Amino acid sequence: MITGKNYIGNKLSATGSVSHKTFNPKLNVENEYAFYEATLQEVDEAANLAHQAFKEFKNTSGTKRAEFLNAIADEILALDDELINTYTSETGLPEGRAMGERGRTIFQLRSFAELVSNEEWRENTIDSADLERTPAPKPDIRKTQIPLGPVVVFAASNFPLAFSTAGGDTASALASGCPVIVKSHSMHSGTGELVASAIIKAAEKTGMPNGVFSNIAGSGRVVGAALVKHPKVKAVGFTGSISGGRALFNLAADREQPIPVFAEMGSINPVVITPEAIAKRGEEIATTYAGSITQGTGQFCTNPGLILTIDNDNTRSFIKDLAEKSTAIAPQCMLHPNIKRDFVKNGASVSSQSGVEVVAAIVEEAEPNFTPAQISAVSGADFLINSKMHQEVFGPFSLVVRCKDETELVEIIQNLEGQLTGTIMAEKSDYQNLGNIVDALQDRVGRVILNGVPTGVEVCPSMTHGGPYPASSDSRFSAVGTNAIKRWVRPFSYQNWPNELLPSALKNDNPDEILRFVNGNHSNDKI
Amino acid sequence: MITGKNYIGNKLSATGSVSHKTFNPKLNVENEYAFYEATLQEVDEAANLAHQAFKEFKNTSGTKRAEFLNAIADEILALDDELINTYTSETGLPEGRAMGERGRTIFQLRSFAELVSNEEWRENTIDSADLERTPAPKPDIRKTQIPLGPVVVFAASNFPLAFSTAGGDTASALASGCPVIVKSHSMHSGTGELVASAIIKAAEKTGMPNGVFSNIAGSGRVVGAALVKHPKVKAVGFTGSISGGRALFNLAADREQPIPVFAEMGSINPVVITPEAIAKRGEEIATTYAGSITQGTGQFCTNPGLILTIDNDNTRSFIKDLAEKSTAIAPQCMLHPNIKRDFVKNGASVSSQSGVEVVAAIVEEAEPNFTPAQISAVSGADFLINSKMHQEVFGPFSLVVRCKDETELVEIIQNLEGQLTGTIMAEKSDYQNLGNIVDALQDRVGRVILNGVPTGVEVCPSMTHGGPYPASSDSRFSAVGTNAIKRWVRPFSYQNWPNELLPSALKNDNPDEILRFVNGNHSNDKI
Repeated sequence: MITGKNYIGNKLSATGSVSHKTFNPKLNVENEYAFYEATLQEVDEAANLAHQAFKEFKNTSGTKRAEFLNAIADEILALDDELINTYTSETGLPEGRAMGERGRTIFQLRSFAELVSNEEWRENTIDSADLERTPAPKPDIRKTQIPLGPVVVFAASNFPLAFSTAGGDTASALASGCPVIVKSHSMHSGTGELVASAIIKAAEKTGMPNGVFSNIAGSGRVVGAALVKHPKVKAVGFTGSISGGRALFNLAADREQPIPVFAEMGSINPVVITPEAIAKRGEEIATTYAGSITQGTGQFCTNPGLILTIDNDNTRSFIKDLAEKSTAIAPQCMLHPNIKRDFVKNGASVSSQSGVEVVAAIVEEAEPNFTPAQISAVSGADFLINSKMHQEVFGPFSLVVRCKDETELVEIIQNLEGQLTGTIMAEKSDYQNLGNIVDALQDRVGRVILNGVPTGVEVCPSMTHGGPYPASSDSRFSAVGTNAIKRWVRPFSYQNWPNELLPSALKNDNPDEILRFVNGNHSNDKI
Repeated sequence: MITGKNYIGNKLSATGSVSHKTFNPKLNVENEYAFYEATLQEVDEAANLAHQAFKEFKNTSGTKRAEFLNAIADEILALDDELINTYTSETGLPEGRAMGERGRTIFQLRSFAELVSNEEWRENTIDSADLERTPAPKPDIRKTQIPLGPVVVFAASNFPLAFSTAGGDTASALASGCPVIVKSHSMHSGTGELVASAIIKAAEKTGMPNGVFSNIAGSGRVVGAALVKHPKVKAVGFTGSISGGRALFNLAADREQPIPVFAEMGSINPVVITPEAIAKRGEEIATTYAGSITQGTGQFCTNPGLILTIDNDNTRSFIKDLAEKSTAIAPQCMLHPNIKRDFVKNGASVSSQSGVEVVAAIVEEAEPNFTPAQISAVSGADFLINSKMHQEVFGPFSLVVRCKDETELVEIIQNLEGQLTGTIMAEKSDYQNLGNIVDALQDRVGRVILNGVPTGVEVCPSMTHGGPYPASSDSRFSAVGTNAIKRWVRPFSYQNWPNELLPSALKNDNPDEILRFVNGNHSNDKI
């Protein structure tokens, strides 16, 4: 049931007077419930409670935290239609997407549960003593990973489930032993509250300390800023715009004690299509990319916003074909009137730059928050001298660049900001000549894809979702996949520690039979 | 041979007009050579050259980089007496320490050479495709780690070899494939130049690209700031004061594209001594700690600057004994007159706080830059209310706190800033009652030690040298040990990539027979 209140731990709280409502973009009307924004006192209460909860939560066994994560998944499923209906009413996204995203959220929670059900993820490392060493004996040292403390997670506008209340950041932080305070997204506060209620139920059922999770509402930047500046908060996860992520990064860096911020921000995800690929299967690629550009109304961080080609007659036909196929897809609903407004504004801004031709424009559509795709094109020379064309147009937009040759194309990649992904569409005969393009992409992105689309981010250990700034604020970590847990932990060493006081993962007899790094070798053995 | 010039890659350069000389604190005279500080043009040249070198260096094989690191070690050894004599003349440290630190430096270089001589360190991860998966096929994704780009390393005042020009930061960055620009320390510029010449020789002998290493002099903050702000620089390593490290952290966070800074800064390294340990072997502990406090004239980041005890008659005797034993050790030379000046000033500042009793004072010593130890004592109640006593007094100083009980002792730990280490001196009969103390320490430090001293940092995979701020600016990494390489790399994924274009570490047939994480399991097998 939606109450419109904040969860401060397991307590529903609404002491403030400011409230907001969510919006149904499909029906173009406000939704029913009002959500009370947290006061600074409520923020403080949530942070202090998380700090208290951390003392117990950090020492829970991995098995217990796995139970907790699996219980969250179960409780989310139990929300059933209420969740799906609230999701669709707050996002304009179709039911199929709601179900798919719920599935992904459940999968993430269960993946992290599996990860921490034994202690291998802590990179346990042992170097035995050598008392005979000269000039000084070598002590016994053993290392594991421990959680940082309370983590603030900012819910994302475009993934109301998978990157919001119980999404990847929350799942990875809870898995590591960090309590989580979610700053709910004001566009889908109802979805957020429902999921929060599921987390609270799961926490109670599995005996987690009160304060292990809180859900805080706020529509402006005041509540978020107060959370990031709170001395009891030890790390931040964010998915959203560059301006939003950078503002949080700056606040965290300005603290008396700076804390890490992992912000996954803007990306236009360059796609290189070789002349051979266009010649051999231009139509197929146009169909595939029309689908990728418009998937989820283009509201994905991995949306292909920049397509790099070599100019020739085939390429010009391809661009026309891509534009026709993209606009042939029926207009789709965007997340919110503000998102639609920014899409139109930013698309117009890029398309009004010198040399840019709108190949397929936004037409007057019947319904107010819906949009078709927009494909624009420009020459490599014009693109190279105007960085305003690098701007992300969040939505179903792509700018196709016609480069005069590979040298120009590579130079364009080298001058891009950091990106989440880089894609190459190429024929087998191209493979041996991709060196310069791959090298340039590698320098600018976190993941390269061959003959595929950047949309669709697998949740698996090998995934990198992150990249050089501003794709993310710290390229040394990934926001997706089980390695995302590494954002919330730090190494901790025990020197000359008696076996009986060591955590089980570091004990001599290796009771959990996990793989450890012992005296320079990986081993499952006792020592 | 010392020239007093900067190395911009393999070119000696001194286009500026500002110079400084180093100082022999033992003889209390300036040394002979003048060192020309880099101009902003020289800084720019070094950064651009590093950027150029990175394009080639990042793709060198691990075997080649191992050769380079081993050649650096060889060339440092070949400097022989000239290096040892320059070191002692610039630091006031004895020859034995110079030899020991050289040995540690060589060991670090060779350890990183061994680490990267195969590709296992890159945490190679493979998730195979599943084309039958519904609703969408699963692509093949493979992940490795790649270097960030040019790294600036700030040489440390207190480790002229092991944490300076070819020290741990440089060795780990070069091992990862990042070019390094060292900002030489103005207190030991001669030692720095000699080691730089060894690195340059090694780079030439092993065919490394010009610009893989530069050595830049500067005595104020201008040169360092210009390096950190340079757009071609991608990460920073620093060991030194909180004010210095924080200034660099702020500069890096303020950049248009922020970069990671790993700064290892202040720590007072709390040591808890139980009443039982004092009763059973107080005299032995006093002897051990008198040695630890005065080792290297106390100029270690892991110097035990804070000793926490429970007040009783034994403890009072112990404090007196510790002070007597510490001051019985002959006065030793400090690194520089400025270091001595700050030691006296900061020791006086802490000792002048309300309730602090100087148990063993600084006496008038015969030689100007020498100092004996200083041991002060204070009650737990006085310490708890005055955070000025938390200040690091860099040198042979320790403040002993007499707590009224364990509760007060734990509260003191909980109120400390982040620390590198926490030590417990305890009897076996204490072990089962250490829970609260260990828990409090774990929250505040990166490494705990039982019945040992915090000084002496092992170079091994299980070491954590870092901790919550301000022990380090990012507690998620260690500055010492082979895992220090993780500071300079980021994950990078290949999706649907043809086997022939993958790096060897990710190829199907696993040509290097390394351990990889394949479909959720660690394996040395082909796939």
